[in-house]
Amino acid sequence: MTSPTRADGRALDQLRPVTFERSWLDSAEGSCLVTFGGTRVLCAASFTPGVPRWKKGSGEGWVTAEYAMLPRSTNTRNDRESVRGKIGGRTHEISRLIGRSLRAVIDVKALGENTIVLDCDVLQADGGTRTAAITGAYVALADAIAWGRANGAIKRDASPLTDSVSAISVGIIDGTPMLDLPYVEDVRAETDMNVVMTGSGGFVEVQGTAEGAPFSKAELDELLALATAGNAELARLQAEALGA
Amino acid sequence: MTSPTRADGRALDQLRPVTFERSWLDSAEGSCLVTFGGTRVLCAASFTPGVPRWKKGSGEGWVTAEYAMLPRSTNTRNDRESVRGKIGGRTHEISRLIGRSLRAVIDVKALGENTIVLDCDVLQADGGTRTAAITGAYVALADAIAWGRANGAIKRDASPLTDSVSAISVGIIDGTPMLDLPYVEDVRAETDMNVVMTGSGGFVEVQGTAEGAPFSKAELDELLALATAGNAELARLQAEALGA
Amino acid sequence: MTSPTRADGRALDQLRPVTFERSWLDSAEGSCLVTFGGTRVLCAASFTPGVPRWKKGSGEGWVTAEYAMLPRSTNTRNDRESVRGKIGGRTHEISRLIGRSLRAVIDVKALGENTIVLDCDVLQADGGTRTAAITGAYVALADAIAWGRANGAIKRDASPLTDSVSAISVGIIDGTPMLDLPYVEDVRAETDMNVVMTGSGGFVEVQGTAEGAPFSKAELDELLALATAGNAELARLQAEALGA
Amino acid sequence: MTSPTRADGRALDQLRPVTFERSWLDSAEGSCLVTFGGTRVLCAASFTPGVPRWKKGSGEGWVTAEYAMLPRSTNTRNDRESVRGKIGGRTHEISRLIGRSLRAVIDVKALGENTIVLDCDVLQADGGTRTAAITGAYVALADAIAWGRANGAIKRDASPLTDSVSAISVGIIDGTPMLDLPYVEDVRAETDMNVVMTGSGGFVEVQGTAEGAPFSKAELDELLALATAGNAELARLQAEALGA
Amino acid sequence: MTSPTRADGRALDQLRPVTFERSWLDSAEGSCLVTFGGTRVLCAASFTPGVPRWKKGSGEGWVTAEYAMLPRSTNTRNDRESVRGKIGGRTHEISRLIGRSLRAVIDVKALGENTIVLDCDVLQADGGTRTAAITGAYVALADAIAWGRANGAIKRDASPLTDSVSAISVGIIDGTPMLDLPYVEDVRAETDMNVVMTGSGGFVEVQGTAEGAPFSKAELDELLALATAGNAELARLQAEALGA
Amino acid sequence: MTSPTRADGRALDQLRPVTFERSWLDSAEGSCLVTFGGTRVLCAASFTPGVPRWKKGSGEGWVTAEYAMLPRSTNTRNDRESVRGKIGGRTHEISRLIGRSLRAVIDVKALGENTIVLDCDVLQADGGTRTAAITGAYVALADAIAWGRANGAIKRDASPLTDSVSAISVGIIDGTPMLDLPYVEDVRAETDMNVVMTGSGGFVEVQGTAEGAPFSKAELDELLALATAGNAELARLQAEALGA
Repeated sequence: MTSPTRADGRALDQLRPVTFERSWLDSAEGSCLVTFGGTRVLCAASFTPGVPRWKKGSGEGWVTAEYAMLPRSTNTRNDRESVRGKIGGRTHEISRLIGRSLRAVIDVKALGENTIVLDCDVLQADGGTRTAAITGAYVALADAIAWGRANGAIKRDASPLTDSVSAISVGIIDGTPMLDLPYVEDVRAETDMNVVMTGSGGFVEVQGTAEGAPFSKAELDELLALATAGNAELARLQAEALGA
Repeated sequence: MTSPTRADGRALDQLRPVTFERSWLDSAEGSCLVTFGGTRVLCAASFTPGVPRWKKGSGEGWVTAEYAMLPRSTNTRNDRESVRGKIGGRTHEISRLIGRSLRAVIDVKALGENTIVLDCDVLQADGGTRTAAITGAYVALADAIAWGRANGAIKRDASPLTDSVSAISVGIIDGTPMLDLPYVEDVRAETDMNVVMTGSGGFVEVQGTAEGAPFSKAELDELLALATAGNAELARLQAEALGA
Repeated sequence: MTSPTRADGRALDQLRPVTFERSWLDSAEGSCLVTFGGTRVLCAASFTPGVPRWKKGSGEGWVTAEYAMLPRSTNTRNDRESVRGKIGGRTHEISRLIGRSLRAVIDVKALGENTIVLDCDVLQADGGTRTAAITGAYVALADAIAWGRANGAIKRDASPLTDSVSAISVGIIDGTPMLDLPYVEDVRAETDMNVVMTGSGGFVEVQGTAEGAPFSKAELDELLALATAGNAELARLQAEALGA
Repeated sequence: MTSPTRADGRALDQLRPVTFERSWLDSAEGSCLVTFGGTRVLCAASFTPGVPRWKKGSGEGWVTAEYAMLPRSTNTRNDRESVRGKIGGRTHEISRLIGRSLRAVIDVKALGENTIVLDCDVLQADGGTRTAAITGAYVALADAIAWGRANGAIKRDASPLTDSVSAISVGIIDGTPMLDLPYVEDVRAETDMNVVMTGSGGFVEVQGTAEGAPFSKAELDELLALATAGNAELARLQAEALGA
Repeated sequence: MTSPTRADGRALDQLRPVTFERSWLDSAEGSCLVTFGGTRVLCAASFTPGVPRWKKGSGEGWVTAEYAMLPRSTNTRNDRESVRGKIGGRTHEISRLIGRSLRAVIDVKALGENTIVLDCDVLQADGGTRTAAITGAYVALADAIAWGRANGAIKRDASPLTDSVSAISVGIIDGTPMLDLPYVEDVRAETDMNVVMTGSGGFVEVQGTAEGAPFSKAELDELLALATAGNAELARLQAEALGA
Repeated sequence: MTSPTRADGRALDQLRPVTFERSWLDSAEGSCLVTFGGTRVLCAASFTPGVPRWKKGSGEGWVTAEYAMLPRSTNTRNDRESVRGKIGGRTHEISRLIGRSLRAVIDVKALGENTIVLDCDVLQADGGTRTAAITGAYVALADAIAWGRANGAIKRDASPLTDSVSAISVGIIDGTPMLDLPYVEDVRAETDMNVVMTGSGGFVEVQGTAEGAPFSKAELDELLALATAGNAELARLQAEALGA
């Protein structure tokens, strides 16, 4: 897989440079500054005993997430959602996606009645902010769970994490499927897909959208193959970052 | 594809009874009361000359959608979003999905500087409200475009509709993939997928979510096959309703 | 009472065709699709054990209502109140009127500590939406109370309904008082009045407004006479619909 | 009309002491601190050239009103609507009533393309705040119109005021109709009615509500007679205050 | 200190006429209509047993304040914050300042688990509204505490008030420092400062802002000297009003 | 000035380590990640041609600021203001302070009709976030102005910056005045003061608050002396960072 030149010279199936800076925050129970090329997301995991009212007495924990972009994370400034007084549809959508993705690798019984909130704040946006957020949030979540176990909030022999989880974007530009699109490619893509997978290769979430012409089953298969390889690489990098 | 009994005795690849009642509203430029079994959605298309500010002078039209549920469309009453003072994430997400799906079959140049808003209000919810909404909204949209052409707002030789569009849900229950899930099945599904397709068989949107265990590529393929057949049937019913 | 021709050829003291479709919703404890000519309102009664905090321990129940219009129930589309983030004054006013009207025929002691919420959603508006809502909501309420008694939530020998209640609009056009105004008449009326009455003929609410010139006591008396006859007819139709 | 003793010893058909303090504010184009017994409402009229967008080019003016209560105008403190972030139904309802009442005596053509906003802020509430607000707002409005004429914003020979307008409450307590209810009587009333009338005796708005048992036509007639006499007295006091 | 003429002929170190009208409201536990020249603020103190959740069981009371301006308290009308649906930054800032200032002279232990809310509503604004509000709120607060003691809510031998508190504005115009600026001077001031002090002469809050050129330490010292004298005079007037 | 030991061993008049990382964002016209010890604030300057409506045609520019904290910048997580749907009083207050402070060193005529918005987002909070924000925002602002000049949006010979500006906190703990308080000291301070100064030593804003006992003129003088020295050091570090 080679020929068509990409904006940054990468191969079609190549990730941008990915880094994880753990414990970026002094007081959060888990935190990670994740970068996918120019995209930088600060992921903070807040561990608190107790669960929302509708979970009380269930013996189960809860993991949820909130995603947001700083006003000048993008090329031109966006108004703050706090100033507008309401959260936009895209923000809502991505927050929910991150939460679902992380819960896919959580054993809520093993977590016990504890809540972990993942705040994913985009400091700089260059495409793939939701996939970077999921991928980095997993690292922060793993650290928060380790914290919980070290501090007695989670039983020492409990394993709330059942697998790792990561996400990557794929897309079709001028008919060519490619992996991990930066902003300049993203705006040109005819089809755009985000794929969330576990470390063991299962699909957690597949969201493909035709921005222009509809896509075929063959194209869908190609995109999924690219994403599968990309997520495998991300799983490896996450494990490395966590010193596993 | 047979054995496991479904809640309502249907075959695994069988749609619920689907009906389209066109012109349900007297004054809307297009309207359709669509039912997928117990799910009933009132779809109203409002045609207005002119476009949002960011489209002015482009020569292009705009199609958008808003989805909402009546408070007692569900088994237990939900608070009104107008009373809560804000729109929930799920509502936002589905409104955006409907809009994108319809725009996939619209030639905005041929539409001219006109706006069509599709209001999809769920009167009764029994699973698959978003797929019924997309499928019914297409019928209302087609009527609104016919109205525009009849009333001179759209050029007589212009064809703003490039194809039809419909949507159906598929899911895996106890390891078995099946089509068009009512509420009782939906809450039990391990994997839940909504598939939006054009009449000519292209994919517009694929949204698959593992609610429990991750799903495999093989399962994904089975689900897509079921959805492809279901959407083909819906396209036929839409054409029939539109008297084409 | 005859001469001046009305928009739809009715006599001055004649109601539009009125229909009640009970149990329009599968899961609501009571529901009714009511029509007054082109006006269609879906009334859903939700019965829940318990009362708002300020009623707890009083041994009394509570009945309240929420009114809303679908965006395209009217000739031209209105923005959703959920999107605007706040409820308009007219909506508030009518919701409160419906609630007060229904409570006028409720014995809260006999209801016990139960709450019934009436959702009145206007699917199509052609004048008189608030009067249709009150009249239809009574039917849904009666069914919800029957449900409560059948299900043991209300004592078998308790009679929470002390009477029936209905409402009708009257107005003066070109100096002529007339009954039950559709939209085309409503916008031309010099005086507009809504009259809520019990089945036994008592006044629950009288709201008369001079839109143009002030009205005299004689005109007021004529309007009240028309409304009294109209409400008597509605009470008869309600009883018929409820199979009483 | 005599026997049953009232809370403050008044006759059944007697108003509480009513005062108008004009020009209570230094900079408003019209203002009036009105009192009906313990009820005190500060009415400020703001005159501005120009009209809302939907009136532009019509040659007509606009008069509107906003009503509000200070948090501690009542016996126990209420939360501020600004803090709650939304306006309650009662506030909306009364603001709309005041605006309609004042527009009933305005010739919008004679006003020209000018807007007058009446702010009616209840400093102390002891029953009848909406009726005091309407009655006092008329005085402030008259002064604002005089200001407009003196300052050339309104043509010298134009007469935007076609009549005066006032309002009074009436109610039935223990079966006895009475005029101008203070708070202690208001909470006990079986029927509560607000009647807005012009100086020449026409009805602008009649709003009667059965709080307990429904009321009869005979009772309605008695209440209207009391209100007619009360409004006549208020019209006399307004004229006196305006030095007419 | 004399020469430069002031808008109203006062000496540079002279307060405007200051008045306190106690018990302006019939039902509030403490109230005071305070005027600083044309500035009039209605201060109402609401005493309620109990404290906010985060203070429960502490044995300590709480004092807080809310400030607001009537829409036409100013030269031109401002939109209501309740209508806009949110509180502006200036309102928030001043409410917090008033609360902090009053708490500086409160012994929360001696107050016991009671809450006093001070509502400071500006009826007319002519500069110095926040300083008038603090100064008047102290008087209302003192009365509410006396009420609490008289009614047994506060122990008879407890002294929740440790001192008095007042506030005054100072500013520099054309290089000349002066005391208590009305609106016409306030808008011209190069430096604007609000100084809150206790009756015994301690500083509670100093807020100085350069509106134009920065100010020097020498200027700051001159302003503080003026404010110290002004606050001493206010403390004397407060004591006089309270009959101490 | 020595003896009492500080939390981190610093001298009483010593700043925490201060760093400025310029151009932290790729696309903002100016940006700076500023740290005051553990406090980290990302300051982004967005330069746009044009001014708010009320400045149009004035020939003058505008500089404003928005401050916010990430939910987990603090020891325990705070709810997002976007989720709560409104901005808190503290956030409002600090945003306004930053804006005023920066405008104190801006010649709006020289800026021309351009707007610069400074977003100051606290990534980690350890006391002094508002002072770090002002100090870092100045650096981002200087870069944005340089960008404007380089790109022709500001005239080459215009000098919109008339001086530099910085801010520092001072406070009294156990009777001892000290400079630049981290969180652990801040919560214990009896008096807390923020002082904004220009590079040439003028006061822009002085905000001192007695958290416990009132403070004296002598204490105020000591605090201002500490702040004056601290701001002089910050001005030196800003100049160094800007390579001046």
